Amino acid sequence: MPERPILVFDVNETLLDLDALRPAFDRIFDDPGAMRLWFANLVTYSEALTLSGAYVPFTDIGGAVLRMLAATRDITISDADGAELTERFGSMPPHPEVPAALRRLRDHGFRLFTLTNNTLEVSERQLERAGVIDLFERRFSVETVRRHKPAPEVYQGVAAALEADPGDICMIACHVWDTIGAAAAGWQSALILREGNAPLDVGPQPDYIGQDLDAVADRLIERYGGRGPDRGRTMPPLLD
Amino acid sequence: MPERPILVFDVNETLLDLDALRPAFDRIFDDPGAMRLWFANLVTYSEALTLSGAYVPFTDIGGAVLRMLAATRDITISDADGAELTERFGSMPPHPEVPAALRRLRDHGFRLFTLTNNTLEVSERQLERAGVIDLFERRFSVETVRRHKPAPEVYQGVAAALEADPGDICMIACHVWDTIGAAAAGWQSALILREGNAPLDVGPQPDYIGQDLDAVADRLIERYGGRGPDRGRTMPPLLD
Repeated sequence: MPERPILVFDVNETLLDLDALRPAFDRIFDDPGAMRLWFANLVTYSEALTLSGAYVPFTDIGGAVLRMLAATRDITISDADGAELTERFGSMPPHPEVPAALRRLRDHGFRLFTLTNNTLEVSERQLERAGVIDLFERRFSVETVRRHKPAPEVYQGVAAALEADPGDICMIACHVWDTIGAAAAGWQSALILREGNAPLDVGPQPDYIGQDLDAVADRLIERYGGRGPDRGRTMPPLLD
Repeated sequence: MPERPILVFDVNETLLDLDALRPAFDRIFDDPGAMRLWFANLVTYSEALTLSGAYVPFTDIGGAVLRMLAATRDITISDADGAELTERFGSMPPHPEVPAALRRLRDHGFRLFTLTNNTLEVSERQLERAGVIDLFERRFSVETVRRHKPAPEVYQGVAAALEADPGDICMIACHVWDTIGAAAAGWQSALILREGNAPLDVGPQPDYIGQDLDAVADRLIERYGGRGPDRGRTMPPLLD
């Protein structure tokens, strides 16, 4: 049986439900496509700034992209709008299957970490409010290397901090740009097909694809199998 | 009077009208936001692949992102759909003011070039069919360095080919990700506010902003002034 990979999870949308932002976007823009376009542009500009060597915290880019999108439609973002979006972004609930799937992976001996484009402060507040922060050994943020995913330095920095070979780490994300970056850094990768996301048939491909985290967890447990550190705690079937 | 900068133009949307794609997107996706989301994702993935060190030609990424977007909505792209989009992308008309504004800049002594994420073959076909190819001294493509804009190597490669100091070149684009990359490479930059685009209030800022190419040309001619090589051909006012 091969060694279990260390699992590193993306946070926004992969673990937490980005749809929690939708009511505010629908109200401000009166357009059901606005939230997805905002998030696509947020990633575009975090990558563009990274390529150009400039670091701006992810939520600051998010605010700037929000104002940019509003300007293209002659809409003004009020302070109350901004405060509502900040509050919603900081308190997104986990996708329904996430807490149990994370516990199941941990109970099977997998070590769990997070790696997000958000600052550690924002990320820890998100995970705390989502009630899943205790499931992770440690949280990583791109702010350490001041480049956003999928820049190779981000993944390299985490591998170094974990003192692990890149091939022994698996990135779990619902964004292909993240699995591309992880694969390019030599990591394994798993893609979750959340709504609005799908595989891209060019570039590095993920090792695992699942409709949700349960599906990906099933594949990992099947492959790396058995019980982990909790094996001793399993009761004999007769006593069930 | 300062030396006129060499002008390097982005092509897609900056010179040519991306709205020519819209009827096909509207028909395939039945969603007026689909075209903008596709283009935003196309840029996201060209940047993601560039950050990860993989080069895939821009139109191939465009096709893959189209299929990805379709998959998120349970839509299948037919061969005929693909052919129509390829045809439309290759034959976008120039924005109305573009041909005359380019001629005006050239008549005022500015040297004009293009620099696009498309391959040279696609780009030259686009400019030929738009009827503006003869206005440019030379066309550059990212395929030479096999990294997409806004990677610094793209702008550095053009400056080297032109044997020009970066500060003597001005990028003219309607996409902030492009003016960010140019500014980071030490170029001047001008942002055209085409529909669906607006300034971003974080990161490197453009030196010039205009509603269309006429507005940007006005600013450049005003600043670098006078007549260029055609000065001798100007008629005295009395004979007008």
